[in-house]
Amino acid sequence: MNDASKNIEPHIVVVGGGFGGMSVVSSLAHTPARITLVDRRNHHLFQPLLYEVATAALSPGQIAVPLRHVFRRQHNVTVVLGDVTSVDLKRRVVEVDGDALSYDHLVLATGSTHHYFGHDDWAAHAPGLKSVDDALEIRRRFLLTFERADRSDSPDERQRFMTTVIVGGGPTGIELAGTMSEVAKRVLQGEFRNLDPSSLEIVLAEGTDRLLPALDPELSARAKSDLEKLGVKVRLETYVTEIDERGVLLQSGERISAANVIWAAGVCGAPIERGLQGFMRDDRRLNVEPDLSLRGHPDVFAIGDLAYVETDGEQVPGLAPAALQMGKYVGRLLANEVGRSASAGARKPFEYWDKGTLATIGRGKAVADIGRFKFGGVLAWLLWVFIHIFFLVGFRNRLMVLIEWAYAYVTFHRGARLITGQDAHEKVLALSETSTSQRG
Amino acid sequence: MNDASKNIEPHIVVVGGGFGGMSVVSSLAHTPARITLVDRRNHHLFQPLLYEVATAALSPGQIAVPLRHVFRRQHNVTVVLGDVTSVDLKRRVVEVDGDALSYDHLVLATGSTHHYFGHDDWAAHAPGLKSVDDALEIRRRFLLTFERADRSDSPDERQRFMTTVIVGGGPTGIELAGTMSEVAKRVLQGEFRNLDPSSLEIVLAEGTDRLLPALDPELSARAKSDLEKLGVKVRLETYVTEIDERGVLLQSGERISAANVIWAAGVCGAPIERGLQGFMRDDRRLNVEPDLSLRGHPDVFAIGDLAYVETDGEQVPGLAPAALQMGKYVGRLLANEVGRSASAGARKPFEYWDKGTLATIGRGKAVADIGRFKFGGVLAWLLWVFIHIFFLVGFRNRLMVLIEWAYAYVTFHRGARLITGQDAHEKVLALSETSTSQRG
Repeated sequence: MNDASKNIEPHIVVVGGGFGGMSVVSSLAHTPARITLVDRRNHHLFQPLLYEVATAALSPGQIAVPLRHVFRRQHNVTVVLGDVTSVDLKRRVVEVDGDALSYDHLVLATGSTHHYFGHDDWAAHAPGLKSVDDALEIRRRFLLTFERADRSDSPDERQRFMTTVIVGGGPTGIELAGTMSEVAKRVLQGEFRNLDPSSLEIVLAEGTDRLLPALDPELSARAKSDLEKLGVKVRLETYVTEIDERGVLLQSGERISAANVIWAAGVCGAPIERGLQGFMRDDRRLNVEPDLSLRGHPDVFAIGDLAYVETDGEQVPGLAPAALQMGKYVGRLLANEVGRSASAGARKPFEYWDKGTLATIGRGKAVADIGRFKFGGVLAWLLWVFIHIFFLVGFRNRLMVLIEWAYAYVTFHRGARLITGQDAHEKVLALSETSTSQRG
Repeated sequence: MNDASKNIEPHIVVVGGGFGGMSVVSSLAHTPARITLVDRRNHHLFQPLLYEVATAALSPGQIAVPLRHVFRRQHNVTVVLGDVTSVDLKRRVVEVDGDALSYDHLVLATGSTHHYFGHDDWAAHAPGLKSVDDALEIRRRFLLTFERADRSDSPDERQRFMTTVIVGGGPTGIELAGTMSEVAKRVLQGEFRNLDPSSLEIVLAEGTDRLLPALDPELSARAKSDLEKLGVKVRLETYVTEIDERGVLLQSGERISAANVIWAAGVCGAPIERGLQGFMRDDRRLNVEPDLSLRGHPDVFAIGDLAYVETDGEQVPGLAPAALQMGKYVGRLLANEVGRSASAGARKPFEYWDKGTLATIGRGKAVADIGRFKFGGVLAWLLWVFIHIFFLVGFRNRLMVLIEWAYAYVTFHRGARLITGQDAHEKVLALSETSTSQRG
């Protein structure tokens, strides 16, 4: 890298431009340090709205912003598009696509990824929702399934195309289930001549005995009844033991024939592959000290979804606000210590302030769990809308998303119902071959 | 197909949902006929603004609209997502992904595609701009090239990354050259620490002796000088004889080392592969009679870019207004003839009304060739903006594009600067390996 030799100020390397990484870098705006932010994508993605891309309401450009653009006026930051493949904690060097980059302080904020509990082959049949490409793939499959059903003559096949299984009843699973149901019932209404799109059957399979296990049980019940009103089949205590191109097999032995399966069940840490084994837990998160540093390495931090942190005996959840708080904490800590020689011992531990949790179910429906206040309905939904617009990065994005939402709310239309991708067309062909051979 | 057996009313099959196909179908709204519109994409694409997607100003969803949505209230239309692979003019049957679909009247509106003059291997190195996927691929390459240049230590390599050759000086080539130059000079300004993005060198290579050969020479000169003010190197009478991963070779023997090459030079018809050989010209367009029907087949029409038509001794250009006019002509003709037995002899020939041509060069710069009026500058540009907003399909798209443009005009920001695609990351890796090996 061009700047690898410059060594005037302490060099802070931040890996990952999500909520945590962005927050660290912003907090260091006025610190006399040289910061390098490395991400394998060129954009910060507002993940809480990714399900809206997957369900064709928003375009990717409306919930993402180039990292370079965010930090264009913060002159102590260099943004690098690249993949960090290893860390050498002794030599204080990370490897970016084969190039060595040395650091004085390192902040790891690489987030989390889908976790298929050892069944990596499920990934092809049940995409998860973490990146823009994931969202576009889910959108493609979701929109294509109606086209396939419309074209098919076989009742069995139509039934399979018109069944979607969502594995996991956390916020992502609930958002997808509610929104997909609304699209099928309202948005696509009247657009097919041979098919009633509202016949789409959405099965939401959750392993525990309630949806949104992190929230109050009252709200779990509320979410379940809201989803059922939308026609979603909520199945609790339901474990999926097999996923293939025909559908899912449940632990009970029951088979659900489904053309689309979406993975919203498990995530694990997404650490840098080499050099961090000693700190990695079974869920691939990194164990950290109360100051979010790695034990014995007060100059290296892990934050956000990647870090396993407990405060007051409870695990800090993998949510955007937690990542933002951790990023701010580490940013301030570094701002204080730069130029001074400080040790981890003198640091005040990180404390998580739980501002509450919101989950949306659909138009006018959400649940809110905010301290003593637990409520659902339109009020929770408006709060959800307000907060998501407010925290979205970039004025333009806020404006466009607000207009898209208002327009969709009034007209029930969605702005991004495109089937794209190199193989969009081949997939229709594949369908046709199946249906022809079944008829022959 | 489910409806292949229904045969109550005359069945009109329209292949292709571009300007021509959409226009035919709309014109038949009140005709007692059964219409099937087949397209291999689920959306109508407003191609005149596709270069804005390729240059990261607009999102694909803002210039495309699902065909089903467009025709949801026109109850005599069935939309089918599928690929028409052959026509049997004798049996009056088209094959859609292997299924037979019989017609009483057939309208072919499959448009045009890139034409590499026999060098199909150039396609991998020099993408053209016809579909959403094309635009996203050009966007990805365009944005990635700055990242690669920024990371590279080799001056030669940096120079190659920072050189883009656009082959073809028609409207598409001019729009891309002007806009890419503006993005490099204004939008990305200050976002790189090791690179001056405005050093991007754009070479626009045109084979004839002027840009926009279809327009008045005065406007060609105007476009050339506007582009040169933006820093574009316009090279006239310049033929490209070879394109590979390192750049282009010119007929003169000169080599231009360039990481990005864009093909805006040639298009040819994109006819259905089997069954139309007898009507196909060298440029793969179809010869048609004055009523746009195929000779000897008064029930089969070809329109839009696919048809080779002359009126008043001049070829009707492959432009959106021409396709719209042909679609309307055939739609009205069919509306008149349905239920009656008419022959091609009684038909009034198609006449093209040339409303003029507009081409935009960049912010506040365009040229207009409208009858006796030939002008450039801000007035032409405003006219261009007005017409493109006006003809864009869908109120929501109009609103969103207008806001994006207004926002971009004021702030110089662009709304969709995302590098996406499965191999976005692998490409950066590939770069790194190249640069490492060059250094070693």
